[in-house]
Formats: sequence, structure tokens, C-alpha cells
Amino acid sequence: MTDKLILNEDRFFDSDPKIRKVARELYEGIRDLPIISPHGHTDPRWFAENQPFPDPTELIVIPDHYVFRMLYSRGISLESLGIPTVDGSPVEQDHRKIWQLFADNFHLFLGTPTGIWLNHEFFTVFGIDERLNSKSAQRIYDRIQEQLQSPDFLPRAMFDRFDIEAISTTDAAADSLEHHEMIRESDWKAKIVPSFRPDKVVNHIHTETWRCEIEHLGRVGARDIGSYVAYIQALERRREFFKSMGATSTDHAVLEPYTHEMTSGEVNAVFQRALKGKASEEDAVRFTAHMLMELARMSIEDGLVMQIHPGSYRNHNELVMKKFGLDKGGDIPVRTEYTFNLHALLNRYGNDPRLTLVLFNLDESTNSRELAPLAGHYPAVKLGPPWWFFDSVEGMTRFRQTVTETAGFYNTVGFNDDTRAFASIPARHDLSRRVDSNFLAGLVARHIIDLDEARGLSRALAYDLAKETYKL
Amino acid sequence: MTDKLILNEDRFFDSDPKIRKVARELYEGIRDLPIISPHGHTDPRWFAENQPFPDPTELIVIPDHYVFRMLYSRGISLESLGIPTVDGSPVEQDHRKIWQLFADNFHLFLGTPTGIWLNHEFFTVFGIDERLNSKSAQRIYDRIQEQLQSPDFLPRAMFDRFDIEAISTTDAAADSLEHHEMIRESDWKAKIVPSFRPDKVVNHIHTETWRCEIEHLGRVGARDIGSYVAYIQALERRREFFKSMGATSTDHAVLEPYTHEMTSGEVNAVFQRALKGKASEEDAVRFTAHMLMELARMSIEDGLVMQIHPGSYRNHNELVMKKFGLDKGGDIPVRTEYTFNLHALLNRYGNDPRLTLVLFNLDESTNSRELAPLAGHYPAVKLGPPWWFFDSVEGMTRFRQTVTETAGFYNTVGFNDDTRAFASIPARHDLSRRVDSNFLAGLVARHIIDLDEARGLSRALAYDLAKETYKL
Amino acid sequence: MTDKLILNEDRFFDSDPKIRKVARELYEGIRDLPIISPHGHTDPRWFAENQPFPDPTELIVIPDHYVFRMLYSRGISLESLGIPTVDGSPVEQDHRKIWQLFADNFHLFLGTPTGIWLNHEFFTVFGIDERLNSKSAQRIYDRIQEQLQSPDFLPRAMFDRFDIEAISTTDAAADSLEHHEMIRESDWKAKIVPSFRPDKVVNHIHTETWRCEIEHLGRVGARDIGSYVAYIQALERRREFFKSMGATSTDHAVLEPYTHEMTSGEVNAVFQRALKGKASEEDAVRFTAHMLMELARMSIEDGLVMQIHPGSYRNHNELVMKKFGLDKGGDIPVRTEYTFNLHALLNRYGNDPRLTLVLFNLDESTNSRELAPLAGHYPAVKLGPPWWFFDSVEGMTRFRQTVTETAGFYNTVGFNDDTRAFASIPARHDLSRRVDSNFLAGLVARHIIDLDEARGLSRALAYDLAKETYKL
Repeated sequence: MTDKLILNEDRFFDSDPKIRKVARELYEGIRDLPIISPHGHTDPRWFAENQPFPDPTELIVIPDHYVFRMLYSRGISLESLGIPTVDGSPVEQDHRKIWQLFADNFHLFLGTPTGIWLNHEFFTVFGIDERLNSKSAQRIYDRIQEQLQSPDFLPRAMFDRFDIEAISTTDAAADSLEHHEMIRESDWKAKIVPSFRPDKVVNHIHTETWRCEIEHLGRVGARDIGSYVAYIQALERRREFFKSMGATSTDHAVLEPYTHEMTSGEVNAVFQRALKGKASEEDAVRFTAHMLMELARMSIEDGLVMQIHPGSYRNHNELVMKKFGLDKGGDIPVRTEYTFNLHALLNRYGNDPRLTLVLFNLDESTNSRELAPLAGHYPAVKLGPPWWFFDSVEGMTRFRQTVTETAGFYNTVGFNDDTRAFASIPARHDLSRRVDSNFLAGLVARHIIDLDEARGLSRALAYDLAKETYKL
Repeated sequence: MTDKLILNEDRFFDSDPKIRKVARELYEGIRDLPIISPHGHTDPRWFAENQPFPDPTELIVIPDHYVFRMLYSRGISLESLGIPTVDGSPVEQDHRKIWQLFADNFHLFLGTPTGIWLNHEFFTVFGIDERLNSKSAQRIYDRIQEQLQSPDFLPRAMFDRFDIEAISTTDAAADSLEHHEMIRESDWKAKIVPSFRPDKVVNHIHTETWRCEIEHLGRVGARDIGSYVAYIQALERRREFFKSMGATSTDHAVLEPYTHEMTSGEVNAVFQRALKGKASEEDAVRFTAHMLMELARMSIEDGLVMQIHPGSYRNHNELVMKKFGLDKGGDIPVRTEYTFNLHALLNRYGNDPRLTLVLFNLDESTNSRELAPLAGHYPAVKLGPPWWFFDSVEGMTRFRQTVTETAGFYNTVGFNDDTRAFASIPARHDLSRRVDSNFLAGLVARHIIDLDEARGLSRALAYDLAKETYKL
Repeated sequence: MTDKLILNEDRFFDSDPKIRKVARELYEGIRDLPIISPHGHTDPRWFAENQPFPDPTELIVIPDHYVFRMLYSRGISLESLGIPTVDGSPVEQDHRKIWQLFADNFHLFLGTPTGIWLNHEFFTVFGIDERLNSKSAQRIYDRIQEQLQSPDFLPRAMFDRFDIEAISTTDAAADSLEHHEMIRESDWKAKIVPSFRPDKVVNHIHTETWRCEIEHLGRVGARDIGSYVAYIQALERRREFFKSMGATSTDHAVLEPYTHEMTSGEVNAVFQRALKGKASEEDAVRFTAHMLMELARMSIEDGLVMQIHPGSYRNHNELVMKKFGLDKGGDIPVRTEYTFNLHALLNRYGNDPRLTLVLFNLDESTNSRELAPLAGHYPAVKLGPPWWFFDSVEGMTRFRQTVTETAGFYNTVGFNDDTRAFASIPARHDLSRRVDSNFLAGLVARHIIDLDEARGLSRALAYDLAKETYKL
């Protein structure tokens, strides 16, 4: 038993020599392409302020729900992992102790993408050459900690070293984009753009939260939002502002991708009920369905690429949500339906070549049944890469296996890292490039495509399609 | 980069040498078996009239929605592809120009079964030895065009050369079968039989279209259809006529495979409402559910094999349907349920050994969950081969992987090419034979079955099961 | 063509030499570990009475619905297979004739796990070295028959030879556990424990059958069950009794894993209606949903591991059920939903580390979508191994492929053989150990995990996790 950490050069490639040889060759042709990151959750503040990340635990464990949900699932409390509570009740403050607990349980990540990303990050970003475990924990902590204090590990330095050509953050409709502004005004030339995610003012109009958000949106636009018309205008003005700050896309998270157009009378009435706190849950569902249509119309007019991320039951674990807040690993996927749900939107806008509608998915059974057929027919529809839980070796392989034969490669949009774990971005793109190279190599080995065709496709999947689709 | 078109002898076989060797051997044993094509959409008129196909675009692009839906999905208009409009408004007439557009975008078919079939067809049927692309487009057009004018490329000559032992077309209940009649009366001895597909007189009884069809059915039978009893008798007489013309099967396309028996009073009342144009959509759903039971009863009596093709949302893209008509690539699958839906039919008729019920599927999640368990228990139930979107390398492989362990091989029914693209028939059977040989070789390589067992199975899957099940 | 029966040493391993070599090595390290069988349906009477099994047909064909459902699906009547009828109407009594029929159709099991288990059982348990077919049928019958009469083939001798360290049977709430008692009082020291499966007194409270079962439960506890409180107490006392007899788990079969807590008033009212025979089907659904919550609460209190087996439409084939009784191969899976259905239970108890909730599954589309995310977050949730229809080479492989990346290995619970076919137990564990070894070898070959990590995992999957999770 060795404790050395080695990233094998052929990792994630099929062991069959015919496939591996081609996979390696394809991968070599794309490994050094710049990173296009068209959808993610990095914090623009990091790049605006360019302050050092405080310590390994703060960088790697505490912000990453992929990491702590797995530890939690095996009975390790979130308090002991230092996850901050909503009410400020005390949690573990000793970051070395948390790191040790993480290291003691690192075997839980065997066979998971999180394990793969972390090892890649340790080795490539921080030059760690031993495996993380109980014995090595504090040594590795020291090594990372030391580097984080050096100028080479400031956010902008890492961004440049990662060779990120363009990255899009995800921002609320009312967001001031002040950090984006700071970056643009700095002398550091990096393409960091916002994307417009108006979920808080579009979904759940039956809640108090929505009314607060509407008020906030009104304040930001310096106009009272007293009518549906004013609301639509406010959204359009915000989109214009986002575009002026470089945005090329919008994003919409919904439980179901249900679309339905209300009459002007209906939608006005629902909106007024919502403003008065009298909207029902059913109103909320219908309003979101209506707004997806409106947002598609706006995308046709202003050219922003429209993304839909459906199918996640947010905050399934209410105890965790109440105590620790949103995005703590307790969002659980649900069965999703696209064919009926998108009928209204696609019939109204799906044949319009000005619309780019990128669909994401947490329900793999829809890949071959609904998504690939929709993308293989409607000019507007493109398929987003495997999302959350599926941005993995098997998940990405299954995506290509279930989608390609019906939708082809050119109705997919390249890779999204979709992460808030900044230092894992190279790992995620590397994994995606390896898996796609291996998939293409499998087609070459079975004489389904030729090697020169595979070369062109590998570049498209790693770089071109993301850049073109997202207009970056 | 070469532009040579080569069909590798080992294509679609696993690259692992142990598997490939066995796959090749199994395939060699079945590659030259005659073609049994028990379900498809070739036009009997071709074989009745035996006129030359006009040109490559008319043969390959315009009639094949697999081809033009993919081009359309990337923003190429159907008008520019020469797809005729319903109202006769003008579309591109220059078939060389359409062919060029097709060739310019042939890379969209990389990794798709359509790409595989087309290359096979080019190489094997037309002797083309260069890849289709922008440069070669007109040369290839010339080559195909020239051959289509020769006697060797008349429909009957191709049919004979393809070694088709039996083929079944798909025909409406009221169809005169005049072309089948012409074939039977000719001195050309080919087994081309109709199959009875009464969808238009069974589904959507709440529509004007249905009433027209019923009138049409009445005219054909020279008897007014004024009651449910008369309707049933008319169907039975048509089935008798189809049988006399060689039919061995029926086919039923439904959104859901819902079955439910109405009382005689109920069904009479619904039928009368329908005749008066007063049936509701719910009536239509219940009527189809009832008729599936009736049709199963008729199959038990007259011995016609019953096929159900459920789960396609027909004409999802209404704009395309209104402008270009049916079957233009806009049919999108939906989630399908068999266990509850077929309960009534299977409880009434599923234990009867005289019934053969072949179930098809566009929702792969049902393969292992519902279809294989149903086929592995009920004497009547057999599983149709991977249908539409799944008649592909990965699709056919997944079918065997998800079905075999529960249903075995002998509750499946061999291959259906299900195509209206006549010249692609050998390509489709070849692909299926290769994929099944490869699947069996994988079992041999893992010592799950022996080579001699695999040999018997490969023949069953390529020939025997289709012939036996469909009584051809 | 040879008729020799050989179990290849490398069976079920990938043929790629890199993977096969590692798989073999991993398997060698675990092949001789004792068997932990935490969930199954062996009859404790066999071990209590230790009488010889009567003959091969009685041991292998008649009790195993995996075997006869496949024969039935190809038109072989259950009567001709000697399956006893409910009303005692005559069935085939000549067990040699039944065995011949089974052998004549043994090709139907090609590629199925049943075929694999049977061959393993023939070869390993009975030393048969020729394939079962029409010619060898009677010779093999003789060989097995002869051995079944010898002391070495008495149930206890086989149990010891199979190296079963612990086995759990499945027993109704009102069961006397008299055979468990006999085993405990014997001088044969084997760990055979009951598990508490109260389905009959929890589900279908709207039926006459339920009222009989409640009466029976009352008699067993010597107390009238006239109220919901008395009912809960009766269940708790039975659980206590089961624990005293060694039980470490409970099991619950439901159509849907729907959970919902009723108020005390509601549940009392529903229970009273049920006692009076006036409960509705909807009452029954809500009562089961409520009881799953109560049973989780009890598990937290008494420490019994809670298992849920949802998603089977029991006795789908009513004709077979009426004529031949329950468990005759006519249970068909249905689409299953966990995210919404388990919300109530998991929010109430899912964060409690005292609860172990093992979820099973007949709907593979939920593996990656719902089950792995739930297990990878909630401390209480663990995933049961591939159940029924999926305890196969492809099924178990797909389980690891779809679950591991999100839930890791340590939120799964090792293998369950879940069988009433006693002599197939070693075959089933062997298959599982081979498939898991091969899966891990695939990870090693692709450098996702290291060989030493794989060694630890292979032992965990074959032995440790089952023992720990089920507290055996």
C-alpha cells in the first residue's frame, strides 16, 4: 500500500488499448485549449477584490456542498464541519480540526467525481504528491495554507494560470453587479460576465419573499412595480443593464419546465393578487409557466441565450435548510417532463432561429426519450451538458450514449463547470475533456466515425460549441 | 485526412479482441440470411408500378424525416430542402442545390444511425467510395442519378437484390390494397403483404376527421356504419379482406397503451355521440382503450398478430404540421406506462396462447421495469425490437442489456426496419445483425453463454424469431 | 458442440485483460468470505426439522417463480409444471415428466441470471458436469435425487457447507416463530434470525383480509385490538418478541413509498372505520403512509433496521393468482417516486442517526435521480442492493454505475440474496462478488481508484457493509 498521490496520464480512458490510444491522442489535441466557462457560480467579488483565500478548509470544505453532504450522509454533523448556522449558533471554529475530520473520511469519496476533482486540485493546483488521509492531513493543510498566502494563489493569478478565456457568473435580477463593475474598471483584462437569473422575482409569487424581492427590484430600478406591465419593463431594463455589463445569457431554475401563456387579463389579475399577498400556489405555478414564455420572447428580442435548469426539489431537508440555509446539499431531483411541458413555448418560439434555448436535466430517463428528440428537431433547442450529479465519468458517458444518436453532437453545447469551487474548475474541464475524448475514441475504435472526424468533434465539444452557443 | 468512404469489416464490434473475434464469427454466420421485414412503411405502389426513382434527392432526402429533421434542427429551413407544403406554396425545386445543402451539412450525422445507414447505402447499394461532403456532392449525385435510371435499380430489381424474403407494409383500414393486388397479379413472385392499421377509425373519435374516415370505411364496405355493431362488423370484414391479401398482423399507434372495457351500453352511447360530433376528448380516450380490447379479441379469433406502438406525441410542432403535413420529424416521445394501462387487456386475454401481442416502446425506462417483466410472464406478450430513435448501435445494445436478463431472448421478436427509406433496408438489417452479434459475443467473452449457444441465438435474432412470430 | 457444463474461472469478468486480471485478484480475496444473508425468504422450518428435500423438481422447479414464470411466458401451462392449485384441482404429479419439460426448455434461460444460478447450483452443489437439456434431463435428475437422500444434503448440512454466517428470514407480524424457536433450542449453532414484516396488518385496511389478520394479531397477543392505540402497542410488543428471537430488521412492501403523518384524531377515525369494514381504498393508502412514519419512529426506539421494498404491482395476473395463489411470477413493477413520497418521513426522522432506512427499488430510473441523491445526503438513508430482476450481471453493474458517483460505496449495504431457492444462495453471492469485483476492477483500470483501495472496497461490499448495516 502506497500513500503516493499520482494522477495517471491515462486516467478515465478505457483500458482497451485500441480505445486508449485514440483517446490519448484526441485528448492531447485539446488538453491545453483555454477554458470557456459559460455557466457557474464563482463569486465575482473574489476577482474584484483579489484577496487571498483564508485557508484550505475555507477554500475546499466549507463552501462546497458536494463535499460536506457526503460527510453528513455518514452521520458527521454539519456543525462539526464548520458550516455556519443561520442564527449564528456556534459551530466548529478550528479549521485544522475540520480538515482532519474531512481527511479521516476521505475514503467516502472513492469512485465519486468529488474525489476525482479534489485529487486533481491537490496535485495540479497545489502540487500535493501524497494521498489525503488521517496521517497526511495536517501536512497537506500546511502545504496548501502556505501557498494560499503567496501572490501566485490570489484569485486573479489563479484565474490567469487556469487559462480561463471567459467565465459567466450567475446573478440575481436586482443585483448591482458592482463587483463586475470593479473588474471591468480594473487594469486586469479578464472576461468575467454576469448572467441574468431572475428566479426570485419569477417563482413563488405566493410568498412573502417574492414581495420583498419585487420591492427590492423596484428600488434598484427606481420605479415602483405596481403592475404587470411595470414588472415586465423592469425585467427588460435589468436585462439591458446585464447586457451592457457583458451578459450573454439568462438562467431559470424551475421545479417543472411547464410553459403556458396566460391572457393579458389573467396575468394582470394574478400579478395583482400576488402583490396583495393573495396569490395561491397554483397562481405561482401558472405565473412561472407564463413567465418562461415571456422570457423566451425577451431572449428573441435581446439575443440573450436562455437556459432552463429544471427538476430539483430545493431544500428537501427542511431541518438543514432552517438551521444552515440554502444550498446545503439537500436539493433532491425529481422526475421531469419536457414534451408536454414545453409544448406551448416551443410552438410559439421554438422555430425561431433567433432563440437559443439550452435545456438541462437531472432526470436521465428524459435524455433519449424527450431531450434528444426535441433538440434533434426544433431549431431553438440545444442540450446543456450533464448537470449536477452527472458531471462525472459515468454520467457524462451516459449523456453522450443516450443523446448523440438522436440529437447528434452539434445540438449539444460543450461543457459547463457550474461550480462555486473555484479551484476545481481545471479539474472539471479536464475530466470532461477526457471523458469526451474517450467517448469519441470508442466510436473510432468501432469504426462509427473516423479519426479525423473525431479530432474535429473533440475540439468542438471542448471549446467551439460553448463559445459559439453562448456567444462568448 | 482522407475523403475515402470505407465500410470497415469490423464496424460496430467491440474493439476488445476476444469480443471482436466472436462477433465477427457470429456475424459471418448470419450476414447472408434473407431479410424478413415484418413491419415497415415502404410504398406498395413502388413494387406494383416498378418505375425508376426520380433522383437522389427524391430518393434519399425528401421522403426521410430522419434526414431533414436533423438539418432543420440546425436552422436549415424545410423549404430550402424541398419538402412540399400542404398549400402548395413554393419550395426549392433544384434537387442538385438541395443535395449540395445536404452534403454541406453531412457532418451533423456523425455518430448517428442515419449517418451509418446513409454511408452503407452509398457504398453498398450505389458503389460510392468517397465520403459525402461539399466537394464530392455533385459527383455523388451524378453517380447515383445514373444508376437510378438503369433497370438494375428499378424497385423490383432492388428488392430481389436485397434478398427480402418477406415484407409487410402498413395500411389504413379502408385502404383498397390495389397495389398489393397488382403485385399479386403480376408474374413477379415476392412476398409483400399488408398489415392492418385502423388508427384513423379507432383514435380521436371526437374529431371531424374521424367522422370522415368512418364514412370512408362505410363506402369501402358498401354498408352504412350507423351503430357500434356495424362498426365492429366493418372492421372484422376489413381484417378478413386484409388476411385474404396475405396480412398476418395489425398495428395500433396510441399515445398511451391504456386499455379498459366498456359495457355494451356505454360503448354504444359513446359511439352515437361520436357519430353526431358530440364526443368529448375523454370519450375518445376511453373508446381507444376499449377498442384495444376488442382488437385483441379479434386477433384471438382471426390469428392476426397484434402490435402496439405507443408513446409518441404526434405533430408536436404544429407550425411544421400545418405547413408541411404529418410525419415531418416533429413527433416527440412521452413517458409511457404499461403495467397499469395493460392490466385490463392482459387479464382478459394475456393468458390466451392464441394471442401474440407485440409491444413497442419509446421510453427506455420501461424496458427493465415493465416490459421485460410482462413479457417474461404473460404468454401473449412479446417485445418488439428497439423502435425509432433506438434502432441504433447504442439503442439496440441497451435494449438487449435491459431486457434479456428478465425476458430472455425468446420473448423478443427479431428485427423490424420500420422504414419508408427503401434503399436503407439492407443497412438497417446489417446494423441490427452486427449489434446483436456483438452483444452475444460479449456474453460469450464473459462466459455467460457458450459459442454454440450464441450461434443458435444469432440466427434466431436475425431471422427465425421474426419469421415465426409474424407467421411469415 | 459440447454438452459439458463448465463454470469458467473468469466468468462475468470483462474480457479486457487489464480489467480481468484485477477482477480476478479482487475476487480471489473475497470468494471465501462467509455469507451474510440479511434479507431473504428461506423457510425456517427446513432448518428446524432438517428433513431431506424430496426431489429435484420439488427443490428447484416448483417453489421458484423465477423458473416457472419464464416457462409459462412461452406457453407452458403451470399445471403441466406441477404448480399446486388453490382449489386442489389436479396438476401434473410426475416429477420426472416435469423435470423433462423444464430441461427441454432450458434454452429459455440463456443470458438470464436464473440460468447462471442454476448452472452454478448444478455444478457446485450437486457436482453435475453436463449441461441440462432434453438428453441429459433424466441422468441429472437421478444424480440430484440420489444426493438429496444423503445426510450431506440435509438442510443443516448444506447451510454449514455454504458457510452462511448469518441469515434473516422474513416473517409476518403474527408469526409464532416456532421454527426459529426450535432452531435456537437445538444443539446446532447457526445464526438464523427472523425479520418483522407486518404488511398484512398495515396495508389494505379496507379489506376483509386485513380484519382477519388484525383478529389473528389480537389472538397472538392475547389482547383485543379495538383501538389504534391497542394496535400500536400490539405491534410494539411483537417487535419486542422478534428482537428477543434475534431479529435486527423489519421489512415493508408497499406499492408507493408514500409517507404522511395523520393527526391522532384522523388516524383513530380511519382505524375505527377499518375495524367496521367501512374504510375506503383511499383510507388504506393514507393509513399505510402514516404507518411508515410510525414504524420509523419504532425503529428509532428499538433499533431495528427498517427496509422498504416498494414498486411492485402484486398479482397483476388475476387468473394466475386465483388459480395458483400468490407469488407465482405475476408481480410486475411500476414507476416509483421517492423524493416527494419520502419527504414527510425524512423530514421527521431522516436526520436521526439512530435510524437506518434501507431503500429498495424496481425502477432503475430512480437510481441516479432520486435514490443516490437521498442516500448521499440523509444520514438515515442507505441503498439496498439491486432487487428482483436486477440481481443480475447487467442489473448489478448498472446499479453501481448509476449510484456510486453520487452516493459513494459506503451508503450502500452489500448484497441481499432475497431468495426462497435455498440451494441458489451460494450462486447468488458468488455472482454478486464477481460483478462487484469486476466493477471495481474497471475503476482501477481507468485509474479512478487504486488497487489497494479496491481491495478494501471489495471486502466491504461482499461482507462488512451487510454485517454492519444489519447489525448481524
